[in-house]
Amino acid sequence: MSVPPLVPGPRDAITDVRGVRVGHWTSRRAATGCTVILCETCEAAAVDVRGGAPATHETDALAAGNLVRRCHAVVFAGGSAFGLAATAGVARWLAARGTGVETRSGPVPVVAGAALLDLGVGRNAFPGPDEGERAAARASGGAVARGSVGAGAGATVAKLPGAERALKGGLGTASLAGPRGLVVGALAAVNAIGAVLDPDTGALLAGPRGDRPGEMRTPEAAAVARAECGEGADELRAGTTLVCVAANAAIGHEGVQRLAVQAHDGLARAIVPAHALGDGDVAFALTTGELPVGDRDLTLLGLMAARAVGRAIADGVERAEGLAGIPSAREWRERGR
Amino acid sequence: MSVPPLVPGPRDAITDVRGVRVGHWTSRRAATGCTVILCETCEAAAVDVRGGAPATHETDALAAGNLVRRCHAVVFAGGSAFGLAATAGVARWLAARGTGVETRSGPVPVVAGAALLDLGVGRNAFPGPDEGERAAARASGGAVARGSVGAGAGATVAKLPGAERALKGGLGTASLAGPRGLVVGALAAVNAIGAVLDPDTGALLAGPRGDRPGEMRTPEAAAVARAECGEGADELRAGTTLVCVAANAAIGHEGVQRLAVQAHDGLARAIVPAHALGDGDVAFALTTGELPVGDRDLTLLGLMAARAVGRAIADGVERAEGLAGIPSAREWRERGR
Repeated sequence: MSVPPLVPGPRDAITDVRGVRVGHWTSRRAATGCTVILCETCEAAAVDVRGGAPATHETDALAAGNLVRRCHAVVFAGGSAFGLAATAGVARWLAARGTGVETRSGPVPVVAGAALLDLGVGRNAFPGPDEGERAAARASGGAVARGSVGAGAGATVAKLPGAERALKGGLGTASLAGPRGLVVGALAAVNAIGAVLDPDTGALLAGPRGDRPGEMRTPEAAAVARAECGEGADELRAGTTLVCVAANAAIGHEGVQRLAVQAHDGLARAIVPAHALGDGDVAFALTTGELPVGDRDLTLLGLMAARAVGRAIADGVERAEGLAGIPSAREWRERGR
Repeated sequence: MSVPPLVPGPRDAITDVRGVRVGHWTSRRAATGCTVILCETCEAAAVDVRGGAPATHETDALAAGNLVRRCHAVVFAGGSAFGLAATAGVARWLAARGTGVETRSGPVPVVAGAALLDLGVGRNAFPGPDEGERAAARASGGAVARGSVGAGAGATVAKLPGAERALKGGLGTASLAGPRGLVVGALAAVNAIGAVLDPDTGALLAGPRGDRPGEMRTPEAAAVARAECGEGADELRAGTTLVCVAANAAIGHEGVQRLAVQAHDGLARAIVPAHALGDGDVAFALTTGELPVGDRDLTLLGLMAARAVGRAIADGVERAEGLAGIPSAREWRERGR
C-alpha cells in the first residue's frame, strides 16, 4: 500500500507544534546566550538525563510517578550551572501572566532547564534572570533563529583533542509531519565533545580540525589520539548537547517519557562519541495533547522524535557562524577549497 | 601525528577480552535457546535498562551505589520472562566450582540476566535451569558461534508491520582493539521490533519484507504504515535487543556504568526505531580490570563500546540462518536476484 512519507513541517522547526514558542537572548560579545521554549498548554512533559556531568533545573518535577509531570517552559542556557539562573526570570514572567500550577498562593510556573559550558568570554558571562525574561518575552510561534544564537551562541563541538581544534556548535531545530496531522519537532543546543555526523548517512559534518585547512579528523582518530597522547585533557568536562522534543499528540505521561528516552537515540546517531562522562546530555520531551492518538501511533512518534533530534543537531552545526576565533564547519570547509 | 586506528580484535568477538567465555544452548526444533557470558574474574559490572518492556534478573545488584556491583555471568535467554529460569542453572554450576561472592554460607554467584520473546515453537519452549547449566559448562574463550544460536536461535527483527514480514534475527559479537592493549568486545542477541541498519553508513541491512521477493521496507515506511493501517498491532510487546559489553580496562564502577550507558548509543545507530515502549532493550557492561588506564582513556572506551555494540548487532543479523519459516536477510536478498 502507498503511505505518505514523513516530511519536514512547514517551518522545519519545533514551532510547527502548535502552542510551542521559542525566544532567544544572545550576547555575541560575551559568546553566550539562552533559549526559552514556551509551552503554556503543555499536557505532559518528561526528561531523560544521560550525560555524566549534567547541569539541570526542576528535572525532578517531571520524573515518573511524581505529581506534576508537565512544565510551562524549558530553558537552555550557556554559562554552565550559573546559566540556570535564567530560569528564574522565565518563571517570573510566566507568573506575571497568570501561568502556572494553581496553588493557594497563586500560579507557580514549572520551568525546567539545563545548561551547557560555552565560550563565555568575559566576566560573569552567563544569562541571568533578566536575560531569561527577555528571551521569554520575545518568544514566538513563527520562524526560529538558528546557529550562533541563544543557547548555541558560544557552543562548540568536536573538541576532544582540545579547544584549538574545535568547530562552532549552535542552536538547531527541525520537525517532521506524519499522518493525520501528527507533528513532532525538536530543538537542540549542540555543544558536544564529540564529532557531529549526518544522522542518516554517518558522513562527518563537524570533526576536530586537522592540521591543514578544511581537514577534519574522525571521532575515532580523535579518541585514540587523546588516549595515546593525552591531548585535550582539559576538555573532559565541557561537552553537552541539550535537546527538547515537542509533539502535538495526546500520549500522556508514559508516552512522553518514552519520547525523552528515544530522543537520545537521535543524539546517538548524530554525535560520536555521545553520553560520555564529561557530557551533560539531557533530553526533555513535552506534548500539547492536541491530537488524539492510539497505541499504534506510539512507535511512529518515537521514530519521529529520534529523527527530528538528529536533524536538529545537524541543523545547529550547519547554521552556525564562527565566533571568538572558532570557525564554523562551513567556514572551515571553505578554507580548504 | 599518526595514531593506530581501531581494528577488530583477533576473533572479532567478546572473547577477545581475556577472561570472558561464551557458551550457548540451542534448540532449533523449539526455536529458542540461551547464551551464557562467563566472567569469573569480573572486577566491576553495570547495567542500563532502556526498553519499556524489559525482562531482567539481578539488575539491582549492579545498580550504582550498591554493594556488589559485579557479576560472575550474564545470561541472555529466549522464552521471555520464563527463560530467566536459566540463570538458576548457571548459578548452580558456578557455586559448585566455588565461584561467587563470599558469604558465611559459602560462595553466592551473582548471575545477571535478561530475556527476549522469541519464536518459541512448541510447549514450554524456553530454556530452564538445566539448559543454562549446559551453556555455562560449554563456555569457552575461543571462537563464538553466531547467528541462529543460543539466545538468538528464535530471534526475529523488523517486525513492526507484523511477524509475517519479519526477518531472522540472531546472536552476534564483535570486538575492537585499541592502543596499549585495550580491548572492548560486545555480544548482542538481536530480536528488535525495528529494522537493522549498518551502524556506520545507515544502509538498511534488515527491514520488514516488502511484497516482492528481496524487497525491504524502510523503518519510516513501516512505522507510518503501522500508524495508518494498524498493521502489526500484536507486535508491540515482542521486541528486544540484549547487549553485553566487556572490556579489559581497570575503570571501576563509574567507568563501567558509563560503558553500559554508551552501549545504547551503538544500539541506536544499528536499530531504528529502538528503545520503544514494547522493547526490552538492556545493556550490561563488565570489566576484568586487567589493564591499568587513565582518565584520558574513558572517552575512547565509550566510543569503542558503542562501535562494538553496533557491529555485534549487524553481525547477528548477517550471520543468521532462516528458521521456522522466517528467512534471514541474506536469504531474502538472494530471493530477489
